[in-house]
Amino acid sequence: MPYYIGGLVDDADSLIARSPEAFREQGIDVRTRHEVEEIDAERRTVLVRDLGTRERSTEPYDNLVIATGAEPAVPDLPGIQAGGIFKMSWMHDMLALDQYLVEHQCRRAVIVGGGYIGIEMAEALLLRELETTLIHSRRAVMPSLDEDLGLLINGTLTDEGVNLITSQRAVGFEARDGRVTAVRTEEASYPADIVILCLGTRPRSDLASAAGVPVGPSGGIIVNDRMMTAKDGICAAGDCTEMRHLVTGEQVSVALGTIANKQGRICGINLAGGDASFPGILGTAITRFCDLEIARTGLNERQLIRRNIDYVAGKIESSTRSGYFPGSSSITVKVTAERETGKLLGGQIVGGPGAGKRIDTLATALFSGLTLTDLEYLDLSYAPPFSPVWDPVQIAARIGARQVGSPKTAI
Amino acid sequence: MPYYIGGLVDDADSLIARSPEAFREQGIDVRTRHEVEEIDAERRTVLVRDLGTRERSTEPYDNLVIATGAEPAVPDLPGIQAGGIFKMSWMHDMLALDQYLVEHQCRRAVIVGGGYIGIEMAEALLLRELETTLIHSRRAVMPSLDEDLGLLINGTLTDEGVNLITSQRAVGFEARDGRVTAVRTEEASYPADIVILCLGTRPRSDLASAAGVPVGPSGGIIVNDRMMTAKDGICAAGDCTEMRHLVTGEQVSVALGTIANKQGRICGINLAGGDASFPGILGTAITRFCDLEIARTGLNERQLIRRNIDYVAGKIESSTRSGYFPGSSSITVKVTAERETGKLLGGQIVGGPGAGKRIDTLATALFSGLTLTDLEYLDLSYAPPFSPVWDPVQIAARIGARQVGSPKTAI
Repeated sequence: MPYYIGGLVDDADSLIARSPEAFREQGIDVRTRHEVEEIDAERRTVLVRDLGTRERSTEPYDNLVIATGAEPAVPDLPGIQAGGIFKMSWMHDMLALDQYLVEHQCRRAVIVGGGYIGIEMAEALLLRELETTLIHSRRAVMPSLDEDLGLLINGTLTDEGVNLITSQRAVGFEARDGRVTAVRTEEASYPADIVILCLGTRPRSDLASAAGVPVGPSGGIIVNDRMMTAKDGICAAGDCTEMRHLVTGEQVSVALGTIANKQGRICGINLAGGDASFPGILGTAITRFCDLEIARTGLNERQLIRRNIDYVAGKIESSTRSGYFPGSSSITVKVTAERETGKLLGGQIVGGPGAGKRIDTLATALFSGLTLTDLEYLDLSYAPPFSPVWDPVQIAARIGARQVGSPKTAI
Repeated sequence: MPYYIGGLVDDADSLIARSPEAFREQGIDVRTRHEVEEIDAERRTVLVRDLGTRERSTEPYDNLVIATGAEPAVPDLPGIQAGGIFKMSWMHDMLALDQYLVEHQCRRAVIVGGGYIGIEMAEALLLRELETTLIHSRRAVMPSLDEDLGLLINGTLTDEGVNLITSQRAVGFEARDGRVTAVRTEEASYPADIVILCLGTRPRSDLASAAGVPVGPSGGIIVNDRMMTAKDGICAAGDCTEMRHLVTGEQVSVALGTIANKQGRICGINLAGGDASFPGILGTAITRFCDLEIARTGLNERQLIRRNIDYVAGKIESSTRSGYFPGSSSITVKVTAERETGKLLGGQIVGGPGAGKRIDTLATALFSGLTLTDLEYLDLSYAPPFSPVWDPVQIAARIGARQVGSPKTAI
């Protein structure tokens, strides 16, 4: 959706993976603009309201798939109801935001939150030539990376012309004639013709919960690795569920299309009589801001410290290609590993074109339980247009490996 | 070197990783233009000839590192001694070739051999605006990939303007006034102002062999995983050695900078009293021709058939980014795996910008013994500028996985 707002994707319809018509051609009775208000898990029925006619009906089921997704966090702050304050969840949010930008000839945008969607929206609004302010509560944006890497992203945001406000939190919104005019923090007020809230999501699991389907501490519907809930005949998939983190073993909710897609497929295979299992997640994610690519997998230092895990870290700034090759740009890679064994625990990458997808090498190594030494001498690909002779992930691994087995230094 | 010839890299000195002066500053007595003619492994001396003064001297050693590299194959064909026939091995080959192109105002080039260097040189010569003919002995170039993927590369070579001659072999060279004028095959004669031989390499191990250092069937010096030869006090590293292929367990010689670099480092660590081991290789390699990226790891179908290994293969044509995202281009991924277990055996990739480095995901999975099903549901990174929701390597894995455990179909 940010790429549509930014004009990189022209056709909103191209964002629709499959239209209702395409589903119907496959014999699937898709009902858009219908809301399920209640699930009766004993009788195996759902109460459905047609949002057009407002009529209710009861539909029976043999198997029910709950795929209600996630909903964006909308903080209960003074002025939040003003016009021109948007979230990015549904296609209609995107279209409404686009329309508002044009109709009200917005010049100044304020984005609240510097996670994935926040920085993607910052790029989009720069492309639309808006004066763009991004307010973030911590010192560095992208809190799923460590602060040292987040500060690199701060730098690029500023360089590209974003008015970056860190260590401040939105506390309210000012409005005139029902339309937002500014975002207030405890320290200042930032003029805004439009505001975009990018404060993360939580699983949309209330409907399931009300039907007695168990929901975990993360707020996501509890499913087994075949996507079945504890209630007979009900399974769930996607952003509304909670899933096992393969590194921590904890149950977490992660709202990402790639995971939702996998879970949907597994759910479908199992319902159709097949047998497929979801292995769990590593916390892999990628995005970009302008030409800066940002990716992460596993656990970062902050997550390790919070869990009291004894770890080593290796970090390197290298180049995406051989230094002498045109188009080479800077890449920073950081890896974390168990201090005692050297077993990889996580990786983070920030760098120019070609940097980001290297996270898949780290994700695969993490899934496989490789050590930093395995990674250092792994037979990865090299040619000048693609990499230095030692891939940056291997140099980071080498630096981390030096500390493996050494006693922890007191901080 | 091809990128220097093509003008993508301007400064020949930038290709020198470390100059003799830089070594000397570190206290290392580097002698360029000196040739070791003989090793006396019993007395621990080498006989050295100064190629400038032509004087010989004997130098003692405690430890000797043989790093003589590989030499390009030069076929013993009629006319091979003519001027204007080049190989690409040393920097001075590159500089001489560059000079020849200019001095003789070459218009027509013939490349003999369509492996990595052959297609890289084809790009370089197109950039120099030469009429470029590439003669290759098989139906498809890039024999380290299967023919179906090689044919995709054939197509791009032709599209970009290379006169591609397949299924023919050079049998001789025509010359006038001592300078090459054509390359002859059994079928035709191809006019050439300059010829570049790109027919692979073999380990330069004669010096070691003459000193009684054992050389394996691949022609490479036999070393253990610490890079020690069977002779006390003599180790070897790089293209002159043979190494263990982690998938087949066979000893092979592979001349790649990435492997040579790792071996050199391991050799140095061990000589300096440390302890490092070379794990072996997967046969990972990458290159590009113009915008087409080409990569491979592990075993291709031809290699599996030759070894009588019962395998499955999965192949997909997908896109490097989300289909709707600008800059998305075609990518073909092929994976091979054990039929019984689904354990990955190899991967090949041909596609547009961003395609090639995905081979590292497959190399890491291969090293780790992952199955196609592991790969299919692995938590790899996704965002529209980087990948479709399912990374192409995962779709290829899925297609292969369908055949795992099924009986082999008679061919």
